[in-house]
Amino acid sequence: AGDAEAGADKIGTCVACHGTDGKGLAPIYPNLNGQSATYLESSLKAYRDSQRQGGNAMLMTPMAQGLSDEDIADIAAYYSSQE
Amino acid sequence: AGDAEAGADKIGTCVACHGTDGKGLAPIYPNLNGQSATYLESSLKAYRDSQRQGGNAMLMTPMAQGLSDEDIADIAAYYSSQE
Repeated sequence: AGDAEAGADKIGTCVACHGTDGKGLAPIYPNLNGQSATYLESSLKAYRDSQRQGGNAMLMTPMAQGLSDEDIADIAAYYSSQE
Repeated sequence: AGDAEAGADKIGTCVACHGTDGKGLAPIYPNLNGQSATYLESSLKAYRDSQRQGGNAMLMTPMAQGLSDEDIADIAAYYSSQE
């Protein structure tokens, strides 16, 4: 499982749309706070690996492509732990 | 904008995975409660129109294909209004 504390240092590119608290900064961006880490991890990997297409994939795929499996687990743990 | 009260009568196929309160019943299913109606509407239309692929699209596309624009707006309003 990911390390939420480590994740807090890895959300530099996430916060522009999802904030530090996981609340989408515009109505088109989903809230991430309180989602299960399993879901967030699965989504980020699907974006990174270009498996998830359409929707916001054009935005998310480039964001995710620099992330290792560990980065993704940490970021997922971080946002999942936000209320 | 959608009608949350009308939406409550249209979530028959949603509740198996997302519950009546929008909380995913398994870790792989996202929570919908409190997401913006704009995001939920956009996502459902992208699934319905086979624009959104990968991720959970294999599950979601058939669910969404029976829905009109009005149904989608109502369902989005309903889940957005859940806490």
